[in-house]
Amino acid sequence: MFFPSLNAIKAAHSLIRPLIERTPILHHPAIDTIAGRKVFFKCENLQPTGAFKIRGATHAVLSLDKKQAENGVATHSSGNHAIALAYAAAKNNIDSFIVMPHTAPAIKKQLVQEYGARITFCEPTLKSREETLQSIQQKTGAVFIHPYNNEQVIMGQATVALEIFDQISEPQTIIAPVGGGGLMSGICLAGSQLSSRIRFIAAEPQKADDAYRSLKTGKIQPSFDPQTIADGLKTSLGDKTFPIIQRYVDDIILCSEQSIVEAMKMIWQRLHIIIEPSAAVPFAALLENPDKIKSQTIVLVLSGGNVDFDRLPWN
Amino acid sequence: MFFPSLNAIKAAHSLIRPLIERTPILHHPAIDTIAGRKVFFKCENLQPTGAFKIRGATHAVLSLDKKQAENGVATHSSGNHAIALAYAAAKNNIDSFIVMPHTAPAIKKQLVQEYGARITFCEPTLKSREETLQSIQQKTGAVFIHPYNNEQVIMGQATVALEIFDQISEPQTIIAPVGGGGLMSGICLAGSQLSSRIRFIAAEPQKADDAYRSLKTGKIQPSFDPQTIADGLKTSLGDKTFPIIQRYVDDIILCSEQSIVEAMKMIWQRLHIIIEPSAAVPFAALLENPDKIKSQTIVLVLSGGNVDFDRLPWN
Repeated sequence: MFFPSLNAIKAAHSLIRPLIERTPILHHPAIDTIAGRKVFFKCENLQPTGAFKIRGATHAVLSLDKKQAENGVATHSSGNHAIALAYAAAKNNIDSFIVMPHTAPAIKKQLVQEYGARITFCEPTLKSREETLQSIQQKTGAVFIHPYNNEQVIMGQATVALEIFDQISEPQTIIAPVGGGGLMSGICLAGSQLSSRIRFIAAEPQKADDAYRSLKTGKIQPSFDPQTIADGLKTSLGDKTFPIIQRYVDDIILCSEQSIVEAMKMIWQRLHIIIEPSAAVPFAALLENPDKIKSQTIVLVLSGGNVDFDRLPWN
Repeated sequence: MFFPSLNAIKAAHSLIRPLIERTPILHHPAIDTIAGRKVFFKCENLQPTGAFKIRGATHAVLSLDKKQAENGVATHSSGNHAIALAYAAAKNNIDSFIVMPHTAPAIKKQLVQEYGARITFCEPTLKSREETLQSIQQKTGAVFIHPYNNEQVIMGQATVALEIFDQISEPQTIIAPVGGGGLMSGICLAGSQLSSRIRFIAAEPQKADDAYRSLKTGKIQPSFDPQTIADGLKTSLGDKTFPIIQRYVDDIILCSEQSIVEAMKMIWQRLHIIIEPSAAVPFAALLENPDKIKSQTIVLVLSGGNVDFDRLPWN
């Protein structure tokens, strides 16, 4: 199991700090009342690229050696990792090659393009994505930066937990959404070394419950084209993220699609910030299962906020 | 002219501090590029009631003597001051009586109700609002807290500037929206005592240009039922706010309705926060008139974020 020391994670944080935001933690009295406890929101949607992915992508880019950097970086992604990698590459004056399914949301295509990445569109299948990426790598020699199953990426995501512990005294439970597991495993790596009493809870849509099934069966279960509104949580766990999650996550809680929309709307209305459906999943899990979570001080990680305003789920 | 000392404003800040947020200041590299300088956003939309009005209302409520507090507070407002006064009263266990036009947005009625205020609906005319308020005051003896033409309210709004100077080193220009002038005059009072070089710019919709006309003619000009999307900026200046604005504001800049919508959408997309049209007015004025503002470090005050999500201006 990959297990970097706390010092190594702190070094990663120092490295990426000039290019990321130390995002604020927000709370709201009405939400505390509804939840019956203190609920803090770590606002990774307020990163410049609109998601925590900037941490891992920036750390991966800054960890390249000189020769690798000359060839640039590549990935396939329809979402926030693509934007983050394009951004991190641009900030470091290296090339980025992004394979995106032609069905990706317009706003995400626009942002990737804006940061100067070279986009290659492909069919919206894993096979097409992987084949297209492979041919680009052969041509360019660009280094593939996996969205989550990559140690430098996981260490970058771990820095979220460093900030949480610095901003909140004695968080009792951290709840994060789980898709590929990069964020969740990173939080476990840092958090478990910062506190022996902290509890880690993963939150997942019922309709994309592959991490739940993986934890229950003890081996990685694939995700079968899940139909959830939480488009960032459709991926399966990787062989680097799963062992960490299996070892440290205390519980995994599912939530319905309806709860996700309600939780998302409540956060928009009360906190006055924009989050995407995936980011609402921890709050939805809490609202649906208040008795499963005993702690009085909970930190929820709001993973991202890239939303198409023309297609809001409550319209 | 009302001119409280810096120490008096600091005392007001200490008094209200437990009930308000020290709101974050956000920025975005893409916005800096578009604006051609450093632009910081003071996020008063992230107050618990969704607007800076909580500062003034809380200060007014905490400044009541015991006998006044027993009778409660009253105001007429269709917007953020109503929510703020209801909130401040509830937090201090005193009664609040709010006169609202029956045409007020549903979300604002809901929030006022939620904080336990007693709402009386009236016709959407100033005459009906004032008469209804007067009859309630006669019955209850509640103290009228004017939304802006009130010294305790202005001192509360002034605390925004204290925080800006604490959070940003050497802001060169502060731009705030101007409706009744409570926010703008408060910022001038504190800011002018904190720096002799700072510039204050007021921003106003072309379609509600009464403050512009007031400054140009040297006397308060009324607002004639203005048809702007910036519903928080329809009111006229008051005899307490106008002299301060006249003395300290360096320039007042107008913007079109289209610019307001574009600025609002850009802030939603880049900063991932929810602001209402009135809060977008300073950024709209900057985008429309880049040459009128020379400074390289500008702070824009985002006044509020209470928006009806079912009626977004770009849909």
